[in-house]
Amino acid sequence: MRRYFFFLFVLMAFTMSSQGYFAPTVNSPEIAKNGAVTFKIKAAKADTVRLIIDSRVDTLMKHTGNETWSITLRDLEPDLYMYYFIVDGTKMLDPENAQVLRDVKTVMNTFVLDPQGDCPMAVHDVPHGEVRAVWYDSPTLNATRRMMLYLPPGYELSRQRYPVLYLLHGTGGDETVWLEQGHAAQVLDNLIASGKAEPMIVVMPNGHTDTPSAPGMGPNNNEQPTFAHKQWMEGTFEQSFNDIMNWVDKNYRTRAAKRYRAIAGLSMGGYHSLYISANQPDDFNYVGLFSPAISRMDQGKCKIYDDLEGKLIAQFKQRPRLYWLGIGKDDFLYKDNAEFRRMLDKNRLHYTYHESGAGHEWANWRDYLVIFVQQIFK
Amino acid sequence: MRRYFFFLFVLMAFTMSSQGYFAPTVNSPEIAKNGAVTFKIKAAKADTVRLIIDSRVDTLMKHTGNETWSITLRDLEPDLYMYYFIVDGTKMLDPENAQVLRDVKTVMNTFVLDPQGDCPMAVHDVPHGEVRAVWYDSPTLNATRRMMLYLPPGYELSRQRYPVLYLLHGTGGDETVWLEQGHAAQVLDNLIASGKAEPMIVVMPNGHTDTPSAPGMGPNNNEQPTFAHKQWMEGTFEQSFNDIMNWVDKNYRTRAAKRYRAIAGLSMGGYHSLYISANQPDDFNYVGLFSPAISRMDQGKCKIYDDLEGKLIAQFKQRPRLYWLGIGKDDFLYKDNAEFRRMLDKNRLHYTYHESGAGHEWANWRDYLVIFVQQIFK
Repeated sequence: MRRYFFFLFVLMAFTMSSQGYFAPTVNSPEIAKNGAVTFKIKAAKADTVRLIIDSRVDTLMKHTGNETWSITLRDLEPDLYMYYFIVDGTKMLDPENAQVLRDVKTVMNTFVLDPQGDCPMAVHDVPHGEVRAVWYDSPTLNATRRMMLYLPPGYELSRQRYPVLYLLHGTGGDETVWLEQGHAAQVLDNLIASGKAEPMIVVMPNGHTDTPSAPGMGPNNNEQPTFAHKQWMEGTFEQSFNDIMNWVDKNYRTRAAKRYRAIAGLSMGGYHSLYISANQPDDFNYVGLFSPAISRMDQGKCKIYDDLEGKLIAQFKQRPRLYWLGIGKDDFLYKDNAEFRRMLDKNRLHYTYHESGAGHEWANWRDYLVIFVQQIFK
Repeated sequence: MRRYFFFLFVLMAFTMSSQGYFAPTVNSPEIAKNGAVTFKIKAAKADTVRLIIDSRVDTLMKHTGNETWSITLRDLEPDLYMYYFIVDGTKMLDPENAQVLRDVKTVMNTFVLDPQGDCPMAVHDVPHGEVRAVWYDSPTLNATRRMMLYLPPGYELSRQRYPVLYLLHGTGGDETVWLEQGHAAQVLDNLIASGKAEPMIVVMPNGHTDTPSAPGMGPNNNEQPTFAHKQWMEGTFEQSFNDIMNWVDKNYRTRAAKRYRAIAGLSMGGYHSLYISANQPDDFNYVGLFSPAISRMDQGKCKIYDDLEGKLIAQFKQRPRLYWLGIGKDDFLYKDNAEFRRMLDKNRLHYTYHESGAGHEWANWRDYLVIFVQQIFK
């Protein structure tokens, strides 16, 4: 009887996982101890198969017999990766890898490469914080909105108060993306465990005021992710930011003072961090601009954006402990950021500058987070 | 300058979301107000295109010109759906729908059909509870393990104590699946808002003791989901269940008494619910067995499974308020469940029986959750 039952389950498993499309006879991705990664896909009738790894790899795969296409990459850095295949011009997920992430509207496979066991984006056997999905009221926007929080290990039973990092996403993201593509919970778990970062609360709101949440989580159930938002960098998010801070300070054991508050964001989130901190010079001791979308100075459109230079001068008189700016050499925003740095330099406003390789991409933003969180609340 | 910047963003969006594989010129799925759903896919060179909707639909699509294949379905019930295309024998996701869910190892697109605005699985404009991902220590298993929790709206600031539903997954699932395929948070939000369910905490642990978490969330970062677990229905989960209850009662404002405790699960989780409640007759006032995997009576393997009949007789002497059993007519476990019911009947043990259409599948389990949570803690 037991064997019969087990057989039924295996049969079901086989039926469900192979519905007309894959035979689980290859292992992909296969990660060797030395960090070499082998990708394989069965594609009997294919003429060409390409492997795309985010913006880092675009390469043809080799037909290695037995209907299988394969390639081994030996020089990938420890990090989180996102990839897919293109089989005769058609995008395909790796049928052997059920771990997927979404980048804006593109669903891809993902894996973590951690040959030395020290990649801060990997899950390690350390105390884990909590991740929460919550809804808060925004009186300014007259809306109920979703955000994600990371609480450090031990939060629930401690009576301690914690500093807060507000961590903002880019135009293509939502409240989930710093946890998904950013692996922010893993980064914080690891750096707190090793003593490199202070225990902190991380607040990840949704920066698009025309939608209350990530697609699928709000009342417009079948909403699709998009770059084309009805409201976009026009001031409403910045103007409603106090609703978020008030809600967090009311609901969580925060240290509700400038000394214990940081704000950082990538791309549009860097733009948000820039203007929110410049308009609220008494609120943030640490500011992180990750490849910030700085060039779009909407003088006149919203008072939030007026007189940035004057506001920055006033902000720096309050002596923020850290004003951190990071960008990749190939970023399409590099030139605008250089111009912004010249303005800071001209006014002798002291900031920390980090220039990395590559462009406007997650490999940089994960690194920037790792660097930034080690420098705050110390 | 502003226009130039916007153009760059749009260019980036286009590049990122269309990398060599789709032109966003069709809308799919397109849901009409009357509930008709139209699926479309561009596939210029295809000979046949099929649409698969979980176990409910398997149909050929029609070539409707302009390289597009299409089909409209008019008789789908309000529910959550999971689907994919098969293009000339190869499984493909819908490139126009970035909302995906995983069923064991199969990634599929998803949408919610809610033409009347009353489907309990849809997000509505009602107060939302919190969802938390937490890690707890299991002294019995000598492990730190992940679980998900749903907290009712208002939990964080109230001083109230709440009843607890322990909600368990099946062999192919993990701690996330009741939230993902089950839409448990949406179901609870909606039924609490309408007064049909009591505010309650829902605890969703991981029922596989050979892994601490869902794939990607544990130290074995690149683990794949599987049906073939090293430890499987051999007693360790049931024996360590008190670790979960103790942790929840310690960390949350629960009503820690039988009267305010329910346990329910699907398939393997039904089996777990059956044996945990039978072995702990003083702990659960409400038991829900959803298509339970009942037949595998491992007499002798673990004392948890010994003398089920005697344990049930003892359990029912404690008069659980509700012992609920649901199964579909086409479920491969139907016969074993009928045998189990005969045993209950023979002993005059009173249970509530719900027989639905269809088989061993999520459409049933979501319905069973909706029915079950309306009957507990009243």
